[in-house]
Amino acid sequence: VRAQDVIAAKRDGMEIAAGDLRAFVLAVARREVPDYQATAFLMAAYLRGLSRAETVALTGAMIDSGARIDPADFSRPAVDKHSTGGVGDKTSLVVAPLVAACGAAVPMMAGRGLGFTGGTLDKLEAVPGTRVRFSPDEFRDQVRRIGLAIAGQSSEMVPADGTLYALRDVTATVDSIPLITASIVAKKVAEGARFLVLDVKIGRGALMDGIDRGRALARSIVEVGSAFGLTVRALLTDMDAPLGRWVGNAAEVAECFEILDGGGDARLRELCLVLAGEMLALAGLATSPEAGMRAAEREIASGRGRSLLEAMFVAQGGRPAEFLPWTPTAAHRAPIAAAAAGVVVAIDARAVGEAAVFLGAGRETAGDAIDPEASVEIVRPVGTSVQTGEPVLVAYASDPARLAAASARLAGAVRVGDGPAAPPPLVGEGIA
Amino acid sequence: VRAQDVIAAKRDGMEIAAGDLRAFVLAVARREVPDYQATAFLMAAYLRGLSRAETVALTGAMIDSGARIDPADFSRPAVDKHSTGGVGDKTSLVVAPLVAACGAAVPMMAGRGLGFTGGTLDKLEAVPGTRVRFSPDEFRDQVRRIGLAIAGQSSEMVPADGTLYALRDVTATVDSIPLITASIVAKKVAEGARFLVLDVKIGRGALMDGIDRGRALARSIVEVGSAFGLTVRALLTDMDAPLGRWVGNAAEVAECFEILDGGGDARLRELCLVLAGEMLALAGLATSPEAGMRAAEREIASGRGRSLLEAMFVAQGGRPAEFLPWTPTAAHRAPIAAAAAGVVVAIDARAVGEAAVFLGAGRETAGDAIDPEASVEIVRPVGTSVQTGEPVLVAYASDPARLAAASARLAGAVRVGDGPAAPPPLVGEGIA
Repeated sequence: VRAQDVIAAKRDGMEIAAGDLRAFVLAVARREVPDYQATAFLMAAYLRGLSRAETVALTGAMIDSGARIDPADFSRPAVDKHSTGGVGDKTSLVVAPLVAACGAAVPMMAGRGLGFTGGTLDKLEAVPGTRVRFSPDEFRDQVRRIGLAIAGQSSEMVPADGTLYALRDVTATVDSIPLITASIVAKKVAEGARFLVLDVKIGRGALMDGIDRGRALARSIVEVGSAFGLTVRALLTDMDAPLGRWVGNAAEVAECFEILDGGGDARLRELCLVLAGEMLALAGLATSPEAGMRAAEREIASGRGRSLLEAMFVAQGGRPAEFLPWTPTAAHRAPIAAAAAGVVVAIDARAVGEAAVFLGAGRETAGDAIDPEASVEIVRPVGTSVQTGEPVLVAYASDPARLAAASARLAGAVRVGDGPAAPPPLVGEGIA
Repeated sequence: VRAQDVIAAKRDGMEIAAGDLRAFVLAVARREVPDYQATAFLMAAYLRGLSRAETVALTGAMIDSGARIDPADFSRPAVDKHSTGGVGDKTSLVVAPLVAACGAAVPMMAGRGLGFTGGTLDKLEAVPGTRVRFSPDEFRDQVRRIGLAIAGQSSEMVPADGTLYALRDVTATVDSIPLITASIVAKKVAEGARFLVLDVKIGRGALMDGIDRGRALARSIVEVGSAFGLTVRALLTDMDAPLGRWVGNAAEVAECFEILDGGGDARLRELCLVLAGEMLALAGLATSPEAGMRAAEREIASGRGRSLLEAMFVAQGGRPAEFLPWTPTAAHRAPIAAAAAGVVVAIDARAVGEAAVFLGAGRETAGDAIDPEASVEIVRPVGTSVQTGEPVLVAYASDPARLAAASARLAGAVRVGDGPAAPPPLVGEGIA
């Protein structure tokens, strides 16, 4: 089948036969189909959609474009967690060691910051020496040895995803449920996961807009995952305000150690335990999500979660002993003060995420370097009282001009009101 | 404005500001926007459409991507004719010299065969020595000197169209009314035409499917043309059966000389006179289309039309004296006989066009060479009686294997019935 016939069929909203779609995607991955045909197909798929059967075919071709780890290699149930992206969302670095401490294998392929949201790989690299690039064999061997690894997608695994994602990124075709589904499921299957908890972020600070789309994405991933033996459970969780007390790479790693030491922000801690509980129940390592939560809590108390996070950094070349204890070292800081006394009613996660990127915690264009110390601290989270002139947020940066500009944007992100206020419920409905 | 923002806006069906669209198209033409972004835009434009204002902006940018001839340079009213493509449609080679003989300037940028339809440039090249590539200055000077020129698009004129068309051709985005409109209007304005008669082919042998789309294309070209001072009159004409008695490059040129000599197929002659009459009336060289028809008829009788066609070939390096009188010289021929006695009720123009391409009269892939002698002769047109075993068509080719395969397809193109039958009305409604 010719590339233009596949494009024309999708353009007209027709169902593409699984074999034809597979051949097309594999040819794109091998660069036999030129990029300009791939992007025409992506736009047609974005606007016309892909059926479940087409999404399964796309996902299968993406998996088979590279190496694939066999879940049986781990000899423990292999479970992963994936978040659709948020601001201050650092739960991966907490749940992976807790769940591994409870007996799971956690082969976690993670990503970099995207738009105004943070990325796990960028956070890992805040600890000096930490590597995030491994061959599939190295990655598998580390999970076998210590129970967990968090790494970037290897060029040997799901290379079609790398190719397609780079093209989607510059052609306004990222935000498509079937294309996102294929990208996520293919990576999870290739990394050797058998179980996946999907954290679907909903709210101002979520990449995916609206609860209906969040639900649709969850259902899509649940269904397509099942075609590849990946059992998926999705939770919709709140992402209106930043999660935890810090947005910024080094600060968020430190915050994870704080949680694993038994302290930290209560809401962040709760979400980590909920996710860990779901992972353990799904993997058959706990009789229920609640039992899983208690098991994870015990691994905070035992210190084994913290030890495993340290061990993971060390296994990946990092020097956590040099990094901890962390205190802000950015050359410049600016408090964002409350304009009036009252209760903090809202902190716009999206505005905070955008300000953090502007300060250097993320990338405005692909080649930008990350400043691990660039951060926003949430001193007074939603629901707390504040006096006039007291800082609600503090911004940290190396560049005073950027700090001044970001401070103005951050001031607009904070809303202080009269009455008592509580943040929205943290965990909403579960799907599958 | 960034390319991906233009793509995203069109993806979402939003109106793109004229300045942004213009900048995008000019950047595509300069190859500053990569092809993979251009094709994502083209697919979004195909599926979401372009408003009239956007189509005008696209057309303007395409014109300004290259050189443009000033209609005032011709010192006579400059009028062109464009056909949306058909089978056996050779009217350009008749109307251009007739209209030039009546006092118009005819700067005609024409194309090559496309799909199953023929192309004027391929026909011209059937006459030995004929050039179809000229610089804009050469083209203009020939029109000034002898009143007409028929040439291919120069790389200096409307280069954005060349770039976009090549990308549309391989990404299933050719058949879009706004994109076709911009391509046609930009070329006509750049070649210096002030008036355009558009022959919108309707029927089995038309590239554009369906009368509604034909009407919509006509209206689009009329409206967008007016934004650039190009006055357009469109006619819908029948293309169910092949036009005239031959499909094939050398044969069709010979058929045009036959019409200009006062003979030839009545239906072909009628369409040529109707189109010439419309062109002359539109250009103000006749008081009405009917008066224009009579003027064109007089230039057949006077022999000036024929002289001008010969003069044009000579001016373009051709040797018509070597070519004429033409008789078929293909090494092999195969009659397609009537299976029963009766009246020829239908000859499927599309099937004939596809068979002709297969015989060598057109290209199956871009690089194929044309065999000017490959042809299909219509011995018994629609409406004529035929006896069992009498030939309705004759196929001509140099390759006997291809001839045999094409004959089988041609047999299926002919339908012989009982009663009397007439071809559909030749000329339908006019638009603007």
